[in-house]
Amino acid sequence: MKIVCEKEKMLKAINSVVKGVASKTTMPILEGILIQTNDNQIKLTTYDLEIGIEYIMDCEVIEQGNIVVNAIMFSEIIRKLPDAEIKITLNNQNLLEIECEGSLYKLATMNPDEFPELPKIDIENSIDIEQNILKSMIRKTIFAVSSEENRPIFTGCLFEIKENKLNVVAVDGYRLAWKTQYLSTKSNDFYAVIPGKTLNEVNKIIMDSLDNIKIGISKNQALFEMENCKIVTRLLDGEFLNYEKSIPENWKTRIRVNKNDIQNCFERISLISSSSIEKEKKYPVKVTIDIGKIIISCTNQTGDAKEELFVSTEGKNLEVGFNPKYFLDALKVIDDDEIFIDLVSNISPCVIRPVEENGDYTYMILPIRMKE
Amino acid sequence: MKIVCEKEKMLKAINSVVKGVASKTTMPILEGILIQTNDNQIKLTTYDLEIGIEYIMDCEVIEQGNIVVNAIMFSEIIRKLPDAEIKITLNNQNLLEIECEGSLYKLATMNPDEFPELPKIDIENSIDIEQNILKSMIRKTIFAVSSEENRPIFTGCLFEIKENKLNVVAVDGYRLAWKTQYLSTKSNDFYAVIPGKTLNEVNKIIMDSLDNIKIGISKNQALFEMENCKIVTRLLDGEFLNYEKSIPENWKTRIRVNKNDIQNCFERISLISSSSIEKEKKYPVKVTIDIGKIIISCTNQTGDAKEELFVSTEGKNLEVGFNPKYFLDALKVIDDDEIFIDLVSNISPCVIRPVEENGDYTYMILPIRMKE
Repeated sequence: MKIVCEKEKMLKAINSVVKGVASKTTMPILEGILIQTNDNQIKLTTYDLEIGIEYIMDCEVIEQGNIVVNAIMFSEIIRKLPDAEIKITLNNQNLLEIECEGSLYKLATMNPDEFPELPKIDIENSIDIEQNILKSMIRKTIFAVSSEENRPIFTGCLFEIKENKLNVVAVDGYRLAWKTQYLSTKSNDFYAVIPGKTLNEVNKIIMDSLDNIKIGISKNQALFEMENCKIVTRLLDGEFLNYEKSIPENWKTRIRVNKNDIQNCFERISLISSSSIEKEKKYPVKVTIDIGKIIISCTNQTGDAKEELFVSTEGKNLEVGFNPKYFLDALKVIDDDEIFIDLVSNISPCVIRPVEENGDYTYMILPIRMKE
Repeated sequence: MKIVCEKEKMLKAINSVVKGVASKTTMPILEGILIQTNDNQIKLTTYDLEIGIEYIMDCEVIEQGNIVVNAIMFSEIIRKLPDAEIKITLNNQNLLEIECEGSLYKLATMNPDEFPELPKIDIENSIDIEQNILKSMIRKTIFAVSSEENRPIFTGCLFEIKENKLNVVAVDGYRLAWKTQYLSTKSNDFYAVIPGKTLNEVNKIIMDSLDNIKIGISKNQALFEMENCKIVTRLLDGEFLNYEKSIPENWKTRIRVNKNDIQNCFERISLISSSSIEKEKKYPVKVTIDIGKIIISCTNQTGDAKEELFVSTEGKNLEVGFNPKYFLDALKVIDDDEIFIDLVSNISPCVIRPVEENGDYTYMILPIRMKE
């Protein structure tokens, strides 16, 4: 194998696939990047047996060939080379020679035949969506996936196509995040639950761009396909929550509040609530809703905190306990200036909706029962 | 105690003293900030029994008093409050009330009489120096202090006044860093060894400004004094190295090289040399000096690296082994474009001097004997 390419182009390719490299593995081959030439293109592949990433780029191929090289060493060396032309050659001692100006590096290689094949995907359904829209949908939901492995289905996000809308939903038993997007082209209804870990990696690879990404679904796999780059992942098995049913239809108390103001209050009060010796989850802050204002308060061994905020309120007064972290997680990803907070009682779910997003983003938190 | 002050002003004061707070201690009082009022000023003090920091600021004092409050909680709350006026009051339950717009926090306090007194310092000698100059002197030497506690004297930097120059020197048995600065005012000769840990904190507090800082020395203590802020520290006991004697007077091989070029070569080659299973220190890179060029190379289990750099050389050819980290530590803090590297033999110290700094900065590394 002998190829010649620009450093920046090769680095971009490596950066895309390196997220698929296994970090803790007993199989050294999975710590590698598979490099394959094909006429005047090369393909880089990484695969940790859960997520597989392929990147194809044009490049001057002087001699065809395939090889696997340690991903970390290869990417670090390319990253630090000067911004110039790089020659990459497999020499006759099976070392990969990387030459660039006055630098010559030789790296040990692995047998490309030992690299596991990525699963073949028979796409049954697919949609096209702008990368920046998908990125925002993932960002607004993924923090709510469960980290508890005893219910694996909730460690992923539901991707559901229904009535020409894409719904992305995450739920962990304490809160639920749901983002909706109308699709511009007609699509078949389908759903799939994609592992949160995969979506984190997808989110790092896709750009804030108007370019499309294709999401394809087969029985057990999903495929994300962009120009040059493909990501394949397994799907999660099981029954997802009937999320629409679990969201209260009406409210008895409604607050309309500036997002930054209430976010600042919760951030400050978290200093007290989370510094407690007891577990954060069990130590709620109390939200008291009165006419025209809310009071957020918390008392524990560290001290005592009270935040008073003038807001617009409708409906009955209420006192309800929350884990402030669950509020903050959502407030951090909401881009709107104003939010509605809708409540029914101190034991019913609380629903947060950005005012301008007009129902396209719904976040729900379960309250915590306050000690009397 | 009752005081009123602007948030930003209080935050600046806290940021200055918080570096003196003990992090791991069995004495909770040392995790606190002592707040003392004095007419229309307050003084904040922290002291971890090694470094003590005092900060004095003007402020509206409505009721005099002293109190100790947990430094982390107090600083985090002040940091997150809106940019407005803050009222701080000790209430009659001995809680410190912090009020700002709609926020009210109450923190547990500790008895100010239990806060240890900072050592009194009888200054025997002192100098005044611009803060930006001191900052640069510390930065160019401190990385070479020893981390080995068996020779405590080398865990600090020598501050030596001689012939109206300030010399700051650090040495760890493998390398030596020495920065000199001419003083504009006449000063008595003296020397002191100041703990590296203190200098790290001093460096975070002092500014890149033309304002002066006073360095005062007593028998066992040093004092750094700026407007509003004082830092006291113990000195290290023992005999420092006769550093001038240990630097070779002549060279037999001289290289003149662009600093960034050789830094990039060492950074790349470190990827190979430091990825070895064997300890970094024992795995040198080989520097081969030939007429008009140097070759830096390294071979181990990971692979093989060679960097060729065209440079200006004088004197005899040479082959010598080095720990690349020791080169990089110095190259990172040198601001000049070009450096001299002077060598005598493959077992004598190698001396690096920035061309423009004209002898005011000297860095010396011991070579590593190469395996034949």
